[in-house]
Amino acid sequence: MKIGTYTIEDYIDLVQSFHGTAAPGILIGGFMVDLARQHLPEGILFDAICETRTCLPDAVQLLTPCTVGNGWLKVLGFGRFAICLYDKYEGDGVRVFLDPEKLKHWPEIHSWFFKLKPKKDQDSDALRDQIIKAGPGILSVERVHVDMTKLGKKGKGAIASCPSCGEAYPAKDGATCLACQGGSPYKSGS
Amino acid sequence: MKIGTYTIEDYIDLVQSFHGTAAPGILIGGFMVDLARQHLPEGILFDAICETRTCLPDAVQLLTPCTVGNGWLKVLGFGRFAICLYDKYEGDGVRVFLDPEKLKHWPEIHSWFFKLKPKKDQDSDALRDQIIKAGPGILSVERVHVDMTKLGKKGKGAIASCPSCGEAYPAKDGATCLACQGGSPYKSGS
Repeated sequence: MKIGTYTIEDYIDLVQSFHGTAAPGILIGGFMVDLARQHLPEGILFDAICETRTCLPDAVQLLTPCTVGNGWLKVLGFGRFAICLYDKYEGDGVRVFLDPEKLKHWPEIHSWFFKLKPKKDQDSDALRDQIIKAGPGILSVERVHVDMTKLGKKGKGAIASCPSCGEAYPAKDGATCLACQGGSPYKSGS
Repeated sequence: MKIGTYTIEDYIDLVQSFHGTAAPGILIGGFMVDLARQHLPEGILFDAICETRTCLPDAVQLLTPCTVGNGWLKVLGFGRFAICLYDKYEGDGVRVFLDPEKLKHWPEIHSWFFKLKPKKDQDSDALRDQIIKAGPGILSVERVHVDMTKLGKKGKGAIASCPSCGEAYPAKDGATCLACQGGSPYKSGS
């Protein structure tokens, strides 16, 4: 059994070095990416959507050419455990999601996914075993068409100097940059 | 000259394999991460902020333990070319930004950063040379205190089943998941 071009063990090592821990969600994410790719036509250029911020974006970043920084992966904060890979020009794609209906035979995955046990009571070995045994068996696939206008994938446009902080920012954001418009997470330092 | 534990050449190879291209912004990002780390106390656990979605998040993900999926990197869409590394418990940190004032002696970096030339007229070799020669010389550092309440770093909380799509979602999002509340980027497929 493989995830992408990796053995399960090598994938777990890779996840550990990038993500810090071999979190269950990224292991499942590996099967999700594989399943989605199997349903895409070969050789197309695809972009990715990840419907949760938790864990799953890292599986996409490790197993596809799509990253947050290159803009080919878009992370949407729906909190749904799903990814979509789609033709970057046409928008036709495949959505893969963890299907709650299919968790009935996998009690450790079910209780982890629905947070039915405190973390300290989880049996992480059993959870990992079930994830590997289940593989794509807990996932469902649907064909989708992505409305790219909803992804806000526009360039930065012209660059201006913010009269407030002095830094460069996208002129289209307004008279000052969005941080100076009240978005800054910083209290003034020394 | 090194970036993190890498030679410049090895870092460029790493960036190419993860990001797809050795984009100028990620090369500068390497110097930014190094400079920020030099100003952090040794041995602290830090989280990261990236103030632009373009390129820079990948430098942080490659050179620190912070990724989008593990939640230690937060990407803010200000379009400012800046990162911040900060003590994850106390909020005290260091912000590093590309300082427009310091670009005067680096015409290729200046025209790339302010988009003064069409991409086809850029001299990418000269740009890379100037970035490597300039190193941290085009950056400035400031101490900041991060107001973590502004970063929306809350857990998902209890998980519910969406009565509309049937998938699991964070119950706190409302009676249905945010995708079913109108956020979905998909047109229905076959």
